[in-house]
Amino acid sequence: MAASRSITILGPGLLGGSLALALQQLPHPPTITVWARRTEAIEKVRSQGLAATTDLLAAVRSANEIIFCTPMGAMPDLAQTIVPHLQPDTFITDIASVKAPIESALGPIFQGKARWIGSHPMAGGEKAGFDAARADLFQNARVILTPTPATAPATLAQARAFWTDLGCFCLTTDPETHDRAVAQISHLPHLLAALLVNAVDPNALEFRGPGFLDTTRIAAGPAPMWAEILVQNRAAVLTALDQFHQATHHTRAALERGDEKELQEILTAANHVRRSLSAPA
Amino acid sequence: MAASRSITILGPGLLGGSLALALQQLPHPPTITVWARRTEAIEKVRSQGLAATTDLLAAVRSANEIIFCTPMGAMPDLAQTIVPHLQPDTFITDIASVKAPIESALGPIFQGKARWIGSHPMAGGEKAGFDAARADLFQNARVILTPTPATAPATLAQARAFWTDLGCFCLTTDPETHDRAVAQISHLPHLLAALLVNAVDPNALEFRGPGFLDTTRIAAGPAPMWAEILVQNRAAVLTALDQFHQATHHTRAALERGDEKELQEILTAANHVRRSLSAPA
Repeated sequence: MAASRSITILGPGLLGGSLALALQQLPHPPTITVWARRTEAIEKVRSQGLAATTDLLAAVRSANEIIFCTPMGAMPDLAQTIVPHLQPDTFITDIASVKAPIESALGPIFQGKARWIGSHPMAGGEKAGFDAARADLFQNARVILTPTPATAPATLAQARAFWTDLGCFCLTTDPETHDRAVAQISHLPHLLAALLVNAVDPNALEFRGPGFLDTTRIAAGPAPMWAEILVQNRAAVLTALDQFHQATHHTRAALERGDEKELQEILTAANHVRRSLSAPA
Repeated sequence: MAASRSITILGPGLLGGSLALALQQLPHPPTITVWARRTEAIEKVRSQGLAATTDLLAAVRSANEIIFCTPMGAMPDLAQTIVPHLQPDTFITDIASVKAPIESALGPIFQGKARWIGSHPMAGGEKAGFDAARADLFQNARVILTPTPATAPATLAQARAFWTDLGCFCLTTDPETHDRAVAQISHLPHLLAALLVNAVDPNALEFRGPGFLDTTRIAAGPAPMWAEILVQNRAAVLTALDQFHQATHHTRAALERGDEKELQEILTAANHVRRSLSAPA
């Protein structure tokens, strides 16, 4: 298979760009084509020695693997446009952070027409766009694969091989479980980091230490992308936020009565969990 | 002055230990004595080539600079015990994270007996104790000095010189303003990080990415110390928590109605502030 691999990446952002650069560095690099909507993006991609085009159909016609790396909102229309032009058995996945809406939109379009499965690589950064792309972005990253009952075992195996080749560690769950989990582990933390930054009095910012900078680093991430993620996953994020509020009210009461023992128990519980996460997977 | 500097550090924890190691590396190192309550701690400190003792009065009698690096709760009794045995004009400061209660307790004790001023170095780490101490902990750290109307200008100048020599950047404010600011920039973020860790379903922890690890890193900090900080500064932390909750309720409403534009504005505001903080001071 390696000799004939032809991979098309739709969208030259941080993730799409990094994916192209990572694939380029494989021991047996595939043919890589990056599709971008805008001409300016094409020039940047080409400057890295990658093939790039604004012609969507030309980009997908000869591909046997297609990776959706655009904003989520653009994916359904792109899928509709390309589906009549695909090679049989084309492997298709994506990198969106919310899986159930993408599965609902893309699953039916590709059913019987391509080997589709959702992917969510837990990689990114504060900077968006191709300028921030780097070949090692996916090294040691977790990728959550979200097969459904309609997913063929061979498609899941191909997705696993795709990401593992790039140095990723794959986990598997269904789209709905994924969305509830990332609401807790990623989307709510992002929202809280932003709210924490906004809540600080400008004068108090002078007194920041390394703890505040770590805690709020993700608040420097691209706002349009994160607003889309929050809205796409809003039911699960609202549930996570409400659970968080309940825990906060309990702790507030302990703080109000100066209950150092209770606070120490709360902090110790967090301490044990957090320390168990320190080593990379 | 440099030739006769004799500095005693009370408490061999992360900060006291790091302070001793940093002072040891100055171009003209002072005489350094570390006081610890427990004999086991003494051995560790001595293994780093530092003088150490469990004899409090011997440790302070010949010192012309004394730095309180114990838990906050131990400071008032120690101050009462040592005050009759001090050299005239001994410079005394501390490293506590909450300043108004320390100022209220230590200020009157040392009034007319020593040159006292509160300090709060914004440095630390997840690991506590002398084993985690390192000579560069204070390099580029911010130190907040909290003089009061009773503080002599020479004492403030000496505190500034003390920390600046160790590579710190000094800021000055009164103890109450300090406590309100760190409630927002340090204590509330710590509490929220711990609550965020506790709120995550254990299964969802599998899906963690680098964002979650950054956001919750401070939750691995020493629980007893942080419980003490939260209780000592509880009025200001409660105010900060309530302000945070109000902002969260507004954002929750935007999320519930799927208002992507409003969410983008909230995230963009945080984005601008957070990006402005990226460069070290």
